Amino acid sequence: MKVKDIALYLNSEVTGDGEIEINGLSSIEKASPSDLTFLSNKKYEKFLSTTEAGCVLVGKDTDISGYDKTFIICNDAYLCFAKIAQAMYAAKKDIRGISDKASVDESAVIDKSCFIDDFVVVKSGCKIGKNTVIMPFVYIGENSVIGDDCVIYPSVTIRERSIIGSNVIIHAGTVIGSDGFGYAKSENGKHIKIPQVGNVVIEDRVEIGANVTIDRAALDSTIIKSGTKIDNLVQIAHNVEIGDDSIIIAQTGISGSTKIGKNVILAGQSGIAGHLKIADNVIITAKSGVNSTIRKPGAYSGIPVFEHRKWLRSSAAFSRLGDMYKKVLELEREIEELKKR
Amino acid sequence: MKVKDIALYLNSEVTGDGEIEINGLSSIEKASPSDLTFLSNKKYEKFLSTTEAGCVLVGKDTDISGYDKTFIICNDAYLCFAKIAQAMYAAKKDIRGISDKASVDESAVIDKSCFIDDFVVVKSGCKIGKNTVIMPFVYIGENSVIGDDCVIYPSVTIRERSIIGSNVIIHAGTVIGSDGFGYAKSENGKHIKIPQVGNVVIEDRVEIGANVTIDRAALDSTIIKSGTKIDNLVQIAHNVEIGDDSIIIAQTGISGSTKIGKNVILAGQSGIAGHLKIADNVIITAKSGVNSTIRKPGAYSGIPVFEHRKWLRSSAAFSRLGDMYKKVLELEREIEELKKR
Amino acid sequence: MKVKDIALYLNSEVTGDGEIEINGLSSIEKASPSDLTFLSNKKYEKFLSTTEAGCVLVGKDTDISGYDKTFIICNDAYLCFAKIAQAMYAAKKDIRGISDKASVDESAVIDKSCFIDDFVVVKSGCKIGKNTVIMPFVYIGENSVIGDDCVIYPSVTIRERSIIGSNVIIHAGTVIGSDGFGYAKSENGKHIKIPQVGNVVIEDRVEIGANVTIDRAALDSTIIKSGTKIDNLVQIAHNVEIGDDSIIIAQTGISGSTKIGKNVILAGQSGIAGHLKIADNVIITAKSGVNSTIRKPGAYSGIPVFEHRKWLRSSAAFSRLGDMYKKVLELEREIEELKKR
Repeated sequence: MKVKDIALYLNSEVTGDGEIEINGLSSIEKASPSDLTFLSNKKYEKFLSTTEAGCVLVGKDTDISGYDKTFIICNDAYLCFAKIAQAMYAAKKDIRGISDKASVDESAVIDKSCFIDDFVVVKSGCKIGKNTVIMPFVYIGENSVIGDDCVIYPSVTIRERSIIGSNVIIHAGTVIGSDGFGYAKSENGKHIKIPQVGNVVIEDRVEIGANVTIDRAALDSTIIKSGTKIDNLVQIAHNVEIGDDSIIIAQTGISGSTKIGKNVILAGQSGIAGHLKIADNVIITAKSGVNSTIRKPGAYSGIPVFEHRKWLRSSAAFSRLGDMYKKVLELEREIEELKKR
Repeated sequence: MKVKDIALYLNSEVTGDGEIEINGLSSIEKASPSDLTFLSNKKYEKFLSTTEAGCVLVGKDTDISGYDKTFIICNDAYLCFAKIAQAMYAAKKDIRGISDKASVDESAVIDKSCFIDDFVVVKSGCKIGKNTVIMPFVYIGENSVIGDDCVIYPSVTIRERSIIGSNVIIHAGTVIGSDGFGYAKSENGKHIKIPQVGNVVIEDRVEIGANVTIDRAALDSTIIKSGTKIDNLVQIAHNVEIGDDSIIIAQTGISGSTKIGKNVILAGQSGIAGHLKIADNVIITAKSGVNSTIRKPGAYSGIPVFEHRKWLRSSAAFSRLGDMYKKVLELEREIEELKKR
Repeated sequence: MKVKDIALYLNSEVTGDGEIEINGLSSIEKASPSDLTFLSNKKYEKFLSTTEAGCVLVGKDTDISGYDKTFIICNDAYLCFAKIAQAMYAAKKDIRGISDKASVDESAVIDKSCFIDDFVVVKSGCKIGKNTVIMPFVYIGENSVIGDDCVIYPSVTIRERSIIGSNVIIHAGTVIGSDGFGYAKSENGKHIKIPQVGNVVIEDRVEIGANVTIDRAALDSTIIKSGTKIDNLVQIAHNVEIGDDSIIIAQTGISGSTKIGKNVILAGQSGIAGHLKIADNVIITAKSGVNSTIRKPGAYSGIPVFEHRKWLRSSAAFSRLGDMYKKVLELEREIEELKKR
């Protein structure tokens, strides 16, 4: 593929030599002369003078004067890189059929365009749509439904009655539909299990990372709406609902019955208490803890959270809190003396 | 099942129409006229006027005057709901025997009432009690013992010499008996592995969530005592002991050799350092970190923790810390001026 | 084995009866007369008077006068214990070959000294070195390479093109090479997946705990250098590099493209933001969050981190912040009154 063809595909402009042949993608630090790379994070701008890449995708606001390089100039270098990478690495799904080492219940309805690999278990009453790939050691419980064009990576457990849409990706080791953590306390102080008889619903274009846990509802459904992306080791408790196109970053936990809006970002290791609502377009910064409903879009930080801007001032002051404490004691003494005068 | 029969089972009183037929359970928001639901969290009281449920379980302190509905009035609505749900959804264990797709060592002793599903591995010297269900992709290492009436969900790993009691539930992807994280530093700064030659003991009625990790002891045993419930993605290090009937909520971590008492609650994403003792009836709130032994029951918060009540005041002040810092500087200036007078 | 033989092996000195027979290792609290134990943590010194151990390994600085016991006195008791435990529990690798219940692609090259257990999947183009043990339900994707003397525990997923050195241990449920969490935002606000086409490289003598997730690079490689040890439930994002001999404790998360130095310690539940550098010999204490590059060795704490010593003073003051806030308001009032005089 030539640079000029890539620019055409991206509907973008070339400066430099459009005839350069590109046959791979690489980072700006490690690219070779036949690689395409991109620059979107300013931190990496220093590599523009040293990169050996055949061509660099840059945004319109990048100053490329003074570099003897070939560039493709686009509105959004990262988005364009995503598009060209998808085109270059379009998944080849040429293996189809059901491995004779899989254990598929005869009542399951599986489209013949699917690939069911070795050591997969599909229980009774399941339905799997077109072109879906199920990798080894995946368990699909009774009466679950999986849509078209999904990829389920190894050792994923999908418990009974889960409903999974189309174009869903679930990474290895993730558990969908485990029992919610619900107990009532008996008269003698023992924890009595509440049977968890609901299910999990995952809508289209959701991607779920590795070793994530999404509990089934006690009653009704735990719901992840379309286009939401969930990173590794996230915990989603029973009866949670997450709106469309939200981003849940690694090791975040969401407690039971909480409703998260659309386009929300929960940064890494954040936590949300139970029975709350988080409005659309809210951002919770890393390691923060939410213990009350948030009705206003914006960024929030802290344990518990408050406005991010205020938190920046509080946390800056916190690093001087030892001195501040000492100073307050001194001021107190000085006032005592002033009062004596 | 009629409302009056449910009330009889729960030894509780009906107000309204005891003849209504109930054939399912649902949440108060989504119940249909043939569903039983319950009200225990005050936040949901507003739904009493709109729910379509055939009958609502309520506590004695709920004001139900003015609602044209059928109620069952009990001491503890949530506990009664747990009891009736357990009765309605009593697990059917009608499949028994060992799948011919499992790999079970001939020296293993497995009661004939068990169900060992496809692709289970049971190594030499294992013993499994009555009515226990082992789901696909479970690994049970040499000389492990599992009691009666347990359910082990898919892809659970139980390493060698684990001892698991009766009525234990282990959810998918959990690892029991992985090596503890123990290294000595060699003369040249390399980490030398300490062989982890102890085991894990899990007593009766323990429930363990999905993708949990419980490390085997370096020596002796890591012990989880009876009735304790552990949520998803919890980390329990080597040589930890957890007392009876404790609650460990999702993504909590407990470091090596720490001893947790009875009826302790460790809320979500909390962490406990190693070699500590936590007394009975302690509550650690979400996201808190414990770095010293706690001898007195009560609630503790913060990183590191102190009394929860004091923490509430500190964290409220923290949100105003930026202004407070500014004010202290101003006061200092003003005192300087006063001193000059 | 006699006490005197153990002392000889450790090149250390005995005080007491060198003829005592030792046939096991145990903790100082639970040891029997035929057990060897050790004392390295001062907290356990009180057990010296009560332990029944046949012999106790102690450091040169331990005061053993007044105890009628047999001791081996060494430079570093913990390190000596590691050495003797390794000698006593040297793994027996007497089972070799490929189970006929495994599914190994015929193009894979596996040394005949390996043991590939039941229900393992090895895809095309893989190479596995000498004496490596692969346990049940492990998935090894296309063209992956694993070195000599590795142990891969059950239900580990190793995605395509991973490169794993020698003497590597990977505990159960861990995922190596899952897709990094990378999306560009489209013109209409949808998240567009960036194909993750790099891989993971794990060097010699790395140990990785249970249910860890290590994402493949978007481009290039995510790299874990030799001798580094990673505890359970750790998240390592795409394009991260971790230097030699570092220690990453449970439930820590490292965000994308961050470079961690050598001999770094990241304590439990800590988090590092993306695109940062952490210098050699840095210690991040438990639950801390790093949001900027650290160039100077030393210990850091807090969210966000600053010098650990300063943090100790700040967090001590934090526990009195409620009172401090009240006092500042009082001082303000008193100054107002003084000004009126």
